Amino acid sequence: MRAVLLLTCPDQPGVVAKTANWIAEQGGNILHAEQHVAASASGATASFFQRIEFTTDAFSVAPHDIGQAFAPVAAELAMSVDLRLADVPMRLALMASRQPHCLYDLLTRWKSGELPADLRVVISNHVDHQDICEHLGVPYVHLPVTKQTKSEQEAKVLETLRAYDIQLTVMARYMQILTDDFIASCPSAIINIHHSFLPAFIGANPYRQAHDRGVKLIGATAHYATADLDEGPIIEQDTHHVSHRDDVARLTAKGRDLETVVLARAVRAHLEHRVITHENKTIVFS
Amino acid sequence: MRAVLLLTCPDQPGVVAKTANWIAEQGGNILHAEQHVAASASGATASFFQRIEFTTDAFSVAPHDIGQAFAPVAAELAMSVDLRLADVPMRLALMASRQPHCLYDLLTRWKSGELPADLRVVISNHVDHQDICEHLGVPYVHLPVTKQTKSEQEAKVLETLRAYDIQLTVMARYMQILTDDFIASCPSAIINIHHSFLPAFIGANPYRQAHDRGVKLIGATAHYATADLDEGPIIEQDTHHVSHRDDVARLTAKGRDLETVVLARAVRAHLEHRVITHENKTIVFS
Amino acid sequence: MRAVLLLTCPDQPGVVAKTANWIAEQGGNILHAEQHVAASASGATASFFQRIEFTTDAFSVAPHDIGQAFAPVAAELAMSVDLRLADVPMRLALMASRQPHCLYDLLTRWKSGELPADLRVVISNHVDHQDICEHLGVPYVHLPVTKQTKSEQEAKVLETLRAYDIQLTVMARYMQILTDDFIASCPSAIINIHHSFLPAFIGANPYRQAHDRGVKLIGATAHYATADLDEGPIIEQDTHHVSHRDDVARLTAKGRDLETVVLARAVRAHLEHRVITHENKTIVFS
Amino acid sequence: MRAVLLLTCPDQPGVVAKTANWIAEQGGNILHAEQHVAASASGATASFFQRIEFTTDAFSVAPHDIGQAFAPVAAELAMSVDLRLADVPMRLALMASRQPHCLYDLLTRWKSGELPADLRVVISNHVDHQDICEHLGVPYVHLPVTKQTKSEQEAKVLETLRAYDIQLTVMARYMQILTDDFIASCPSAIINIHHSFLPAFIGANPYRQAHDRGVKLIGATAHYATADLDEGPIIEQDTHHVSHRDDVARLTAKGRDLETVVLARAVRAHLEHRVITHENKTIVFS
Repeated sequence: MRAVLLLTCPDQPGVVAKTANWIAEQGGNILHAEQHVAASASGATASFFQRIEFTTDAFSVAPHDIGQAFAPVAAELAMSVDLRLADVPMRLALMASRQPHCLYDLLTRWKSGELPADLRVVISNHVDHQDICEHLGVPYVHLPVTKQTKSEQEAKVLETLRAYDIQLTVMARYMQILTDDFIASCPSAIINIHHSFLPAFIGANPYRQAHDRGVKLIGATAHYATADLDEGPIIEQDTHHVSHRDDVARLTAKGRDLETVVLARAVRAHLEHRVITHENKTIVFS
Repeated sequence: MRAVLLLTCPDQPGVVAKTANWIAEQGGNILHAEQHVAASASGATASFFQRIEFTTDAFSVAPHDIGQAFAPVAAELAMSVDLRLADVPMRLALMASRQPHCLYDLLTRWKSGELPADLRVVISNHVDHQDICEHLGVPYVHLPVTKQTKSEQEAKVLETLRAYDIQLTVMARYMQILTDDFIASCPSAIINIHHSFLPAFIGANPYRQAHDRGVKLIGATAHYATADLDEGPIIEQDTHHVSHRDDVARLTAKGRDLETVVLARAVRAHLEHRVITHENKTIVFS
Repeated sequence: MRAVLLLTCPDQPGVVAKTANWIAEQGGNILHAEQHVAASASGATASFFQRIEFTTDAFSVAPHDIGQAFAPVAAELAMSVDLRLADVPMRLALMASRQPHCLYDLLTRWKSGELPADLRVVISNHVDHQDICEHLGVPYVHLPVTKQTKSEQEAKVLETLRAYDIQLTVMARYMQILTDDFIASCPSAIINIHHSFLPAFIGANPYRQAHDRGVKLIGATAHYATADLDEGPIIEQDTHHVSHRDDVARLTAKGRDLETVVLARAVRAHLEHRVITHENKTIVFS
Repeated sequence: MRAVLLLTCPDQPGVVAKTANWIAEQGGNILHAEQHVAASASGATASFFQRIEFTTDAFSVAPHDIGQAFAPVAAELAMSVDLRLADVPMRLALMASRQPHCLYDLLTRWKSGELPADLRVVISNHVDHQDICEHLGVPYVHLPVTKQTKSEQEAKVLETLRAYDIQLTVMARYMQILTDDFIASCPSAIINIHHSFLPAFIGANPYRQAHDRGVKLIGATAHYATADLDEGPIIEQDTHHVSHRDDVARLTAKGRDLETVVLARAVRAHLEHRVITHENKTIVFS
């Protein structure tokens, strides 16, 4: 068994040694360790972040008791701890509207074993992808939505996520704006893809905005969804060169590849337990 | 001799043929031709843009009379014409403040023959680069500036640009904000480099803004300077991946390479007569 | 109706004008035109290449007679002519082995209307993708192959391509080496994807080769298949940064996105009639 | 004071803890730590690599005795140790021939404080850069070379490197092939820039080779020089898109930016003590 500790605490001498010692004492072997120290903007104590991946086969405590066993070390270091059992795939839901590219791409990656996830359900406000999901053996929950039924539909989405005990929900070009209530109540992390290099072109029709401004690059941004639209912690971004020849339709077509790849990278980083969120930013370990 | 015609007109049948015929009739040979048609947003007539580079050795008219000779064709097609004699290097001025990277890079490219320009003067509000410019044989005009002397200093800059008969002024990290008056009165085109992927992080300290937002990319944008700060037509942009490890100092260091390369590409495009400006956007021919 | 002329001839004065005139005389309107002149390595006459896209609605000759009508102009200019009726989607076949990523990506793009193609058949030496193809309504021809049955199998592939009257065959990670006979007899153009930045890592296991050499980039190359393995004209290439952390499995996973995107770009360029091949190189118009 | 330990040893349980403990016991604080485990190709024990940067202000041993103090830990873990005192800039020599771009770029970065180096000498087989170096206050040693005088000239280069006690020699487009004897006798590490994406286009005229093959990318590779030409461990690579429009001259011009940036990144990585070499590959910590 492999476990991953995602640790956040005030920077202090000896912190690396204390954690490494504890793992060594339990009989674990560190497979990967990466740390980061971020100076505080305000001049306060710097913050320390670490991802440690280690074997637990020789541990005397059972995997699910590791957190409790580590608690005294964490307490001593004022550490916030996120323990992941890396051999248990994370329970995943995908949400999509009409556009298929991000959804099909994630389905293909999941099918070919590239994504370490237990894909439990696809939720959509359209029926378009029902066939392909059934063909792949993934339950498909069709929850249409109108202005009038929005709060009711969101309640059903939340219910579905709870029913499948989802840990990560990916908005694979789900084109409905999520309410603050939904985000506050959502039992899982949420990753969204925005089709611009944020913070440029926030909001609707970013390719139209990009064309109007005459930019020479388009971009895509994968981020955690938070109450502030398009303002959540950024996980991954990329851009692609464009030119005066690219009208809005061509920008949109070129952008699809960016959206697909950027979203997939962000989802993989989360599923591989490589992301810590801190003060509306992410630390994405390599 | 080579000449370049940069043409803009309403799109209409026969426009390519008429111009090509005229060149053929004069005895010219087309070396490169590239065109672009941009649909109008408002549904009005589309716009036609063309760059034609051709030999003029067999022309019966002298190089400086080509414009007049072409005038009837242009009139028939309601064409706006920009004629460039491509073998005459453009008269260039560089402006810089303290930071050397963009200035030294352009000086090095000019020195090694990479930039087809007649570099006539470097203007700076600091003395820092006087030695290197004198060493390279480029006149250096030191025009210090304070809040109190700004309008006076700008007047001297304009006077210098006029004295050297400058066609293109490049702001190679010149850190003073240009007044609207300066831009309106400037006898040359002005290219500026902004150290972000515009329209994100307009204004001061873009690397600080980028760090605060937690982006995973930094960028640089070269654009023509217009009255609206950071809002002029974009010529060239590029981005570079960054991570949580990059604090503001590292973002700044990484950004220097982007700024340097993006500015140099934009300057080269202008000097090679490959840019047409239209409705606050650029067409940059390849 | 839109038509595209892909033209190759010795460079000569008046060539642009003569073709543009002919189109204007027929009543056509040029939508896009791009040309290229390549100096000859040996000092012989330069070569001229042009892509012209134009409307034919006002033509007096029928679409299928345009080639004949243009023949006198072509003869005068010693021009090799490739005429495409751009509103008729090209007849396409996809071939794949076990790996799904390139195949599924092209299927998804075709399904969503991004590829202007008449996808007629998928051919594979495995049954793996039969379900998905049937689900999408694309005929699936399963032609297993062994060392012993190779020539027989290739004959059946050729028969299938002929039966469906295929114009472009895309090897979407089809892992069998094609014989010279097959390539010589193939009724269609063939595009292949190689998972390295050619000419580096020709042949088998390029990701293993890349790992052994310790490169900091991996790449993918889409090219036309010719008798010389991995030596055909390159249409599109791209690379992605990798590090010491990437073992062969991670290089392979990262490479999948490159392969997918690079192949799709090349296929789109061909389907949009933007590629001319000349002396084992391509001119890819923008 | 900051020190960096670059460590290589067989992978084994407890290795991270033992080193971290030792630093903590001395009173040091770990600023950055990054590790890597590379599986052995042959199935033998995996290798462990680590870069640890830490403060030494509270150490009881003097900076130059740290290596000896750490020796028992290293011996226990069969560790190869490279200790760097990070506040002492590395002693650097630059070598160049006629082409200025890499040399001037490194000079500019050094001058502006971007490179943590003690630049002691520039050596060239041409006089071209003497003025600029003298202007910047860097000793310039002009050592012309012919076929007849090669071994004699190389002896003088080595003598110069020894006289200045150089730790890193950077071949900033030094166009002479170094003999095996030179490389074997050189008292410093050597970084070279090759103007292609190795292993493609090894040897002379890579841009000519690239043009002949019709590639859609050009590249540059910075590597440590070893006895096998262009075969040394790669530190950094990058590529840039090119098209059919780029003849050899334009490939060369576009390539200059790549060479400059790739070489600078590699030099910075070495000067910042972020590179470990192992079995003809590099681990470049972030």
